[in-house]
Formats: sequence, C-alpha cells, structure tokens
Amino acid sequence: MKQLQAVIDRIQPLQDEVVRQADDHLNQLTKPPGSLGKLEDIARQLAGITGEIMPAFEKKAVIVMAGDHGVCEEGISAFPAEVTPQMVLNFLAGGAAVNVLARHAGADVVCVDMGVNADLEHPGLLSRKVRKGTRNMAKEAALTSEETLQAVMAGVEVVNDLVAQGYRLFATGEMGIGNTTSSAAILCALTGLDAGVAVGRGTGIDDAKWLHKQGVVNRVLDLHGLRGASGEKSVEMSDEMGGKVGGEVSDEIGSKVGGEVSDEISGKAIEAASGRALEVLEKVGGLEIAGLVGVILGAAQHRCPVVIDGFISSAAALVASRLAPLSASYMLASHLSQEQGHAKLLEAVGLSAMLHMDMRLGEGSGAVLAFPMIEAAGKIMKEMATFESAGVSRG
Amino acid sequence: MKQLQAVIDRIQPLQDEVVRQADDHLNQLTKPPGSLGKLEDIARQLAGITGEIMPAFEKKAVIVMAGDHGVCEEGISAFPAEVTPQMVLNFLAGGAAVNVLARHAGADVVCVDMGVNADLEHPGLLSRKVRKGTRNMAKEAALTSEETLQAVMAGVEVVNDLVAQGYRLFATGEMGIGNTTSSAAILCALTGLDAGVAVGRGTGIDDAKWLHKQGVVNRVLDLHGLRGASGEKSVEMSDEMGGKVGGEVSDEIGSKVGGEVSDEISGKAIEAASGRALEVLEKVGGLEIAGLVGVILGAAQHRCPVVIDGFISSAAALVASRLAPLSASYMLASHLSQEQGHAKLLEAVGLSAMLHMDMRLGEGSGAVLAFPMIEAAGKIMKEMATFESAGVSRG
Repeated sequence: MKQLQAVIDRIQPLQDEVVRQADDHLNQLTKPPGSLGKLEDIARQLAGITGEIMPAFEKKAVIVMAGDHGVCEEGISAFPAEVTPQMVLNFLAGGAAVNVLARHAGADVVCVDMGVNADLEHPGLLSRKVRKGTRNMAKEAALTSEETLQAVMAGVEVVNDLVAQGYRLFATGEMGIGNTTSSAAILCALTGLDAGVAVGRGTGIDDAKWLHKQGVVNRVLDLHGLRGASGEKSVEMSDEMGGKVGGEVSDEIGSKVGGEVSDEISGKAIEAASGRALEVLEKVGGLEIAGLVGVILGAAQHRCPVVIDGFISSAAALVASRLAPLSASYMLASHLSQEQGHAKLLEAVGLSAMLHMDMRLGEGSGAVLAFPMIEAAGKIMKEMATFESAGVSRG
Repeated sequence: MKQLQAVIDRIQPLQDEVVRQADDHLNQLTKPPGSLGKLEDIARQLAGITGEIMPAFEKKAVIVMAGDHGVCEEGISAFPAEVTPQMVLNFLAGGAAVNVLARHAGADVVCVDMGVNADLEHPGLLSRKVRKGTRNMAKEAALTSEETLQAVMAGVEVVNDLVAQGYRLFATGEMGIGNTTSSAAILCALTGLDAGVAVGRGTGIDDAKWLHKQGVVNRVLDLHGLRGASGEKSVEMSDEMGGKVGGEVSDEIGSKVGGEVSDEISGKAIEAASGRALEVLEKVGGLEIAGLVGVILGAAQHRCPVVIDGFISSAAALVASRLAPLSASYMLASHLSQEQGHAKLLEAVGLSAMLHMDMRLGEGSGAVLAFPMIEAAGKIMKEMATFESAGVSRG
C-alpha cells in the first residue's frame, strides 16, 4: 500500500499556465473560437498534461491486459472461458481487431498476462500473472488485498518500463471472459447504480441470460455488503467504513466549506473513497482490471495521457479516479460502448466519449481508433494558419 | 433538368449479394458477431457500394465548395461576408483546419468557387462560379431554376473529373458566410421543422442575434410559401404542387400498398418530392449547397462512397436524398455537429454520425476526420484473423 500511495502522491494537477497558453494559441487560429470542439479540449488537456503546447507522441502503445474470472462458473458469458488464452495468442499473432486498429494508428500492442487461467509462454507476452484467474466473487472475495495491490503495481511498472523506452501516449485494453460482470459490479458498488442499469449483454447474451447475470451481480453486491455505495461526491461510506470515519466526514462536508478544515475533510474523504475503491476492486474486481488501474495511475504519474477504451477499461478508470482524483485529468475517453451502463460509467468518471461507433468488443479496439483524433488535435496546434498570417478578418 | 434526371436515373441500389458476402466474412472474424458496431456497418455498406468486399480507396478527396449569401444583408452572421474569399485563399494556401485534417487523413483538398462574391484566381482553384453570391432570400428567390441546375451539374462534373483521375472516396465541405441560415431554411422547408429548432448559432452569434436569425428564417419561409412542408414519407405537397398531384397521391399512398399501383404512386411521390427539393434549393439554397448536392449525386452515380460533413453538408444531403432516394445509401455521416438542428437533419436523411466532437466549423473538417474510421473498416475486413485460422472457440 505504501508503494501505491507513493504513486498516487506523485500525480500532479495539470499545468494551468500551459493550458492558458494553448488556449491563446487556439484563439489565433483561422476558425471561430471553440469551433473545433473536443479537438480544442484535447489540445488544451495535452498541453496541461505534458507542459508543452505542441507535444509530440512518437511512440504510443495500447496495453492489453488479460485475466480470467472465477464468476464464469455462474454461467454469465456467451463465450467459454477458454477463449481468454486463445485470444491472447491471437493478440500475439497480430490477428485480433486491436492489432489491426493499432497498426492503423501506428501504435504498438503490449500484451500482459495478469491472470489468465492457462500456462502461456510467448516471447511477445509480458507475464505478470498474479494467479490463474480470480476466485468466484459470487461465493467469496475475488482477490486478497495483497493480490489486488500486486496487480495494480504490476500495471504501474509496465508503464514505467514503457516510459523508459520512450512511449508517451497510452491506451487501455483488456481481455477476460466474464469481465463485464465484474465491471458492472464495480460500477454498482462505487456509484450505487442498480444492476438493472449497470449490467449489459457483454459479448452477446440473450434476455434470459441477461436477467440471470443481473441476478448474479445483485447476489455479489449483497454477499460483499457493497450496496448503497459511495459516490466520490456523496461520500456515503459502506457500513464497515462508515462506522470508522464515513458518517462524520460526510456530515461535516455537508455543512462546512473552505479553509483548512475543509482541506482536511476533503483529504479524509478522498482517503475514505480511496479505501472503498480498493475494497471494491478486491471483492468484485479482476486482475486485468486491477492492472489497468495501475496503468492509468502510472501514466498520470509520468504526465502521459491515457486513452480509456470501453466498459471494462472505464471501470478501471472509475477505480483510479477514486484512488487518485487527479488522475482523471490524464484520461481521455475514446468511445461510447454499446454495452449498457457505459454512459453512466463515463459520467461517473467525468469523461465524454469522442466516438459513437456502437462497438462492444473491448481489447482496446475503441481506444486505438481514437488515436487519430488525438494526433489531429496536435496537428491543429502545429499546422493551422493564424488570422494574422492568413489575412482573415475576425468576427 | 434532363441532364440531372439522367444522373439520378443512373444511381443504382447497393449490391445486396456483395453485402451478404461481406457479412459472411465479418461473422468469421475473431470477435463476437456485430461487436465492431458501425465499423461492420461501414464494411457492409462499402461492399454494397463498390461491389467488392475489400475495396481499396487509394485516392480520396474532400471537395470544399464556396459561395456567398445575399441574406447576409439581414445581419445573421458573426463574421463579415468578406471572410468567404479570405478563407478560400486560406484553403488554397493549406492553412485552414480542413487542410490540416485532410493531410492527416492522406486526402486531397479540392477547392471550388461556386459563387464567391469576389474575383478569385489561383492555379489550385476550380472556378465554377455561377454568380457572385445568391440573391437575398429574405426579399426574393436566392437563385433562378437555371442557376440552381447549373450549380448542381457543376458538382456532378467535378466528381466526374475526379473519378477520371482515380479518386474513389469523397467528402463534402463548404465555406460561405450565411450558409447556416440557408441550411436551416432548407431543413424547415423539407421537414416542416420549426425555425426555433432548426436555427443554430453558426460561427457563434449571441442570443439576440440568434432570435433575429430565427425571425429571418421564418420570414423567408413565409415569403416563399415553404411552410407545412413535404417530408419524404408524409409527402404533403406545398400548395402549388399539391394542387397538381400532391393531394391525390398522398391519399392513395395512405390506403393502398403493393403491386403496380403503389409502384406508380411511389414513382409519382418521388417525382413530387424531387420537384419540391429543387424548388427549395432554388428559393432558399446556396450555390455551394447546390454544388454539394451535385457532388453527392455524382458520387452515387459512380458507386463511390461520400462522407457528409456537418450542418450545411447535411442540408445538401437532405436535398440529394429527396431528389434521388437511392443516393442516401452512398452517404456516410461523419460527425454530429454542435449546430442546433443537426441531429434532426441527419435523422431526416436517415444517417447516424460516427464522431461526437462538438465541432461546428464546416469546411469538411469533420468529414475528413472520419476518413480513418472508414479505412479502419476496410482493414478489419482485410487483416483480421478468422475463428478457424486463429483457433479461437465460438460462443
């Protein structure tokens, strides 16, 4: 936990002054102010992240983490669990959608075994296996707290290594049969959302199986006492945590603002939310999800932008934003997945998706598809003429 | 009119058999069926358009048409009309947003003067000027029917020339101070939508000017008798057309289906809608908008996909879809503009946007930003592994 706390503490706010400089430049360019919409938002964000108004991202990677899920015993997926290792081999052979789309974007695929339930060896595979799949969360906690921390720190270290190799732009991706169930449980537990809203059809289940999957998530939430959960803002604590600090803290937040006291309170609230996020990750999370939490925190720690893929990656983003609220400034949402609950999930992290492609594949496929948007924002900053240079009248 | 009718008559439906072949191939690829969402829709559409399941689009162009608008006299824009020729020169110098984003997408910018109110000469400029700007539609018809047809056919011929040069993928773009006002009037006249819904803030006007712009559009609709307009499906005719064929036709459509009679009726209804679309284009359109109608019909005639940009391009797409309903199958919507009314406009054409970037610039900037999505769809077809080749189990 000490190691993880050190990572969290190293995450800094965006550089406001550089954001302002980027904004000044955008307003000189030959277009009505703000008319490039999210491209302008991205340009400002990248400036604040990197400290440069025209940053370059020559090396970029999508980090695809794989892990299996004990909850598959409950029959919640359209595909058998053996597909997880099969798809990892497909990633390594370059034949999956994420490979095709990463090549298209000029990005590398970094494939990490966080917890696949098979013995996998391949020169291209990073093996960070914590255990062969999670335990069945419908019966017990998916992970121990040691396993959870190990997985998160493995993600942090994967990013450390890639940054050392010159990578500066990251995307999240995952593979794990059963992981939309885990992600839906995380969403419910961290926002209080109903399973009927949070649970989707994953790789494509029918109505009967979908209702069954909702039932499993409800059972899981009950088993682990994760109902009536803590939103970052409302800061209602779970029973056991509320007993310690939650009740008091949230009462005080309701009645006071400003000054040292609220700083202290906000510090405590963040600490409580952070503890809650780790607890949720441990009880209903997955090894690939925990790894991605580490990837996101690691990217933020190194002041690198990280593009968030679909439902599962966004669940990791939600956990990361509760562990380290500042990390959200380093995230860019790529696409709005067709998976039910994704819009609510993005909203909870405070992100807005660029692409509406009705995709629901995961793997990081939507995230790499958004890389060209991010590069476009950079080129707008570098290559567009100004009103003055082009002799164009202002409105 | 005879020439234009010949173009319309040459537009064929998509090739269903090739669409089916593309679909079969998509279902062999290592992903849950349908999980790549719109990328799969695009792959099927491109197959049906080109007749090949893996078409190549080596040369692609965004056709940016420029024209001025007499209605600027009414003070409806945030920018002065002199910006139209200034921006055309900026396009030709390569400094505008569309130039940057086209280079990013590997596409060429083809700039066409359809009706700029200035004498422009430049080796890179295609001069197809019909007249120096439209007449003020708040006082008289913007164009004569001869001018309208000349502009549409100029667009058709620009595409003919580009196809002869090997271009196979097109995007629409435009520049014309005042043209969101014209586009809003087209939207109202062809769908019956209220000006309060259809009129947006264009390049960025304040509340007072926005209300004034709505008032101008309402006045224009009244002046030209374009209220209570004809949707493609409802086929209510304007008074003068309704007197001739409208009333009867729409009554019969309501009560009969199937067989020769309905074919004949549907032929008449399309003819009526087509006449109405040309009338609207003439009275409240613009020369660049009419030119883009020709570009879209020309692309469809040559079985080439055409990517539709934002609000103004979509107004051209709506007119094209009324002139030639089959042309809609050749269109791909790129982005949802921040311009109020764009969602309704896309809905009226039957299109769904890929990008939600909150852009409102025009120029074709959003359309070229969507080129990488279209190429991604092509690469998915060509490069992804199949379940069999990768040894992955099916669900």
